[in-house]
Amino acid sequence: MKGDAPLQLRVFDLNCWGIRYLSKRRQERVELIGDTLRQEDFDLVLLQEVWSEQDYSNLKAKLGGCYPFSHYFRSGVIGSGLCIFSRFPILDTLLYQYSLNGYPYMLQHGDWFCGKSVGLVVMKISGILFNIYVTHLHAEYCREKDTYLPHRLVQAWELAQFIRHTSKAADVVLLGGDLNMHPEDVGIRLLRGWTGLRDAFAEAMHFEGCEDGCTLIPKNRFTDKAELLPFPLGIRIDYILYKAISSFVVKCKELKTTTGTAPGMDIPFSDHEAVMATLHIKRQGQAAGDTLGTAEPMMADVVTEARTEVCVGLRAAQRQRCSTGRMAVLALLLLLVQATAALGTLVGLGTEQPFPKLSFSLLAFSAIGILLLATGLHLFHTMEVKMLLGTEEQMQMALRALQERP
Amino acid sequence: MKGDAPLQLRVFDLNCWGIRYLSKRRQERVELIGDTLRQEDFDLVLLQEVWSEQDYSNLKAKLGGCYPFSHYFRSGVIGSGLCIFSRFPILDTLLYQYSLNGYPYMLQHGDWFCGKSVGLVVMKISGILFNIYVTHLHAEYCREKDTYLPHRLVQAWELAQFIRHTSKAADVVLLGGDLNMHPEDVGIRLLRGWTGLRDAFAEAMHFEGCEDGCTLIPKNRFTDKAELLPFPLGIRIDYILYKAISSFVVKCKELKTTTGTAPGMDIPFSDHEAVMATLHIKRQGQAAGDTLGTAEPMMADVVTEARTEVCVGLRAAQRQRCSTGRMAVLALLLLLVQATAALGTLVGLGTEQPFPKLSFSLLAFSAIGILLLATGLHLFHTMEVKMLLGTEEQMQMALRALQERP
Repeated sequence: MKGDAPLQLRVFDLNCWGIRYLSKRRQERVELIGDTLRQEDFDLVLLQEVWSEQDYSNLKAKLGGCYPFSHYFRSGVIGSGLCIFSRFPILDTLLYQYSLNGYPYMLQHGDWFCGKSVGLVVMKISGILFNIYVTHLHAEYCREKDTYLPHRLVQAWELAQFIRHTSKAADVVLLGGDLNMHPEDVGIRLLRGWTGLRDAFAEAMHFEGCEDGCTLIPKNRFTDKAELLPFPLGIRIDYILYKAISSFVVKCKELKTTTGTAPGMDIPFSDHEAVMATLHIKRQGQAAGDTLGTAEPMMADVVTEARTEVCVGLRAAQRQRCSTGRMAVLALLLLLVQATAALGTLVGLGTEQPFPKLSFSLLAFSAIGILLLATGLHLFHTMEVKMLLGTEEQMQMALRALQERP
Repeated sequence: MKGDAPLQLRVFDLNCWGIRYLSKRRQERVELIGDTLRQEDFDLVLLQEVWSEQDYSNLKAKLGGCYPFSHYFRSGVIGSGLCIFSRFPILDTLLYQYSLNGYPYMLQHGDWFCGKSVGLVVMKISGILFNIYVTHLHAEYCREKDTYLPHRLVQAWELAQFIRHTSKAADVVLLGGDLNMHPEDVGIRLLRGWTGLRDAFAEAMHFEGCEDGCTLIPKNRFTDKAELLPFPLGIRIDYILYKAISSFVVKCKELKTTTGTAPGMDIPFSDHEAVMATLHIKRQGQAAGDTLGTAEPMMADVVTEARTEVCVGLRAAQRQRCSTGRMAVLALLLLLVQATAALGTLVGLGTEQPFPKLSFSLLAFSAIGILLLATGLHLFHTMEVKMLLGTEEQMQMALRALQERP
């Protein structure tokens, strides 16, 4: 950073909707994303839902000239889908996989298989130390009855804690991603309040794009129109957030979103709109210090609200743990009864076998199947209870800390 | 810290061997641990394998007077087993669950079910900011053919990375735990070299306890004597490690271990020996800076050695992913053949059913069972491959960084 001229950083963020075999016109869109990124002079590109490693490799090959540094975050069965391309060298990376991420048996939603995570990349640009985070939280499939809310809140909390604990040496913190939360949702208030991150859309001096900064809009040909019926303008769930920790100030000079199609094309990049921010980073005289972003009495309310939702999830998980445990015990009892009957017949206690062999075997196999399934589910919900309890305790600790502050 | 007098910190670390229904004389030993901690004036107590929450609650109730602050880290099915008791307030906590931790089907080893993790606790003692880590890595069941070595190395690497990224604002870093690695093992060299942590045993001005600081000794009545046959003195796998990051120096004034029994008693605390360190922390004139602990050319060798082992694990995981995938496909084919045969009989193509009903159903059920099992294993090994690949890439990045340094 020469003299007092601010550092300008152009950031591109997009949920690419890159599900193999499922996402429409995937390869064509990935090509288009690559072409656009090569033409435009962004400094940082934060992508989500790049679930095919081949797509990442293709992008890497295409963008090697203008974005020589990149990282793909691996996790889960399918992968985290997160990757980053940069004009500047990547000094270090770290991946944190969220402890809760939906249910393995909700195959139609599939979030569990992605190993949803937050990826951290450390960079030094013009002498300024950047911690850049990219993430994707659990999807919201039904806003009226959002059964995944407790999991998403645990993720938002873990994201906030991870950022707080890992960014203490950074000059500037930048987070981009699909948070699957509307701007007024408790999870985003928790994340912003607990980390002090600012919303590029709210802070932007100049904005160009969809009304209200929406990133999932009915105009996009790939969005689910029925899902967006209650929101005629669309919803905003993709964000670029930032803060300066030490003696720097960050300003969002401009924020843009695509508006249903890729610029100058007739198809969109994805079912989400891209978010593009131009940030100015400048050294300032006095250190700003690491402060919470929200007034603290308000922050206590936000943590309390989040904790209440986590407690709702905890009770549901406890009920499921109980019912699956009971089912496993019943299946085991049935097996024991059958084993006793079979043994009785073998040692000649019974005159003849009470059931035909086929039904007897089918019953036994079904009992074994139910026993295994119920045990697996019981173990899963036991883990879920543990993680929800752990988060609830951490939130309680945060509340105490907030209340004890002078 | 008044004037220049150093802060004295007494740290107690113990793997408590607290497995419900399995560990011998567990309740009696937990009582004994609680009584001893209450009598002794430690400042920090780092415990592992406290797998029963009831044991933790009992300890908490007993130690409330002298260690008013405590935290239990929850994860996995059984729990992480990690907890901490302290005389000083806990400001914040964070849990990082290792991405790999053995195999769910290795029921006799059970590590997978514990959700092995590292717990971080932040404290301010006499104005000095402490990051205190407690952890327990995957056990080594057979030193000659250690199939878990790649997983343990991934854990050691993730532990080192987690400590590096989260401790940037800390004045003093402290790590206690059962690392399940001998002092000369590549994992411990990697951890120490990559974080700059020092070994309290090696640095201690005064030592009292088992020869070579061993913490798993044949003299302890609960240890497996056959396992320790090649090591007549025992092995050292429990550690207290530390470093000062900013303008502080830490010295280990004294290190002690128990020697097969609890002090003044005829039974031990656990199958492990307790490690007790007295540390002196002093502010020094000039900032020490965050440096790697080992000379860098050596560090590159250590990372290369670790990477080679991770690659061995990667190839094994890839083989297992392939073979489980093949098995799933075969089971599916068998099911398809059976379905075709059954359909043929139903529509009257075959004159009569080729198999008796019972064998036919048993075969179908077995095929379904194998299909489900093989698919589950295939998904698990796919995740394993992803995490090993990710670690291998991170190590490669670290090697490049080491080589590029002037």
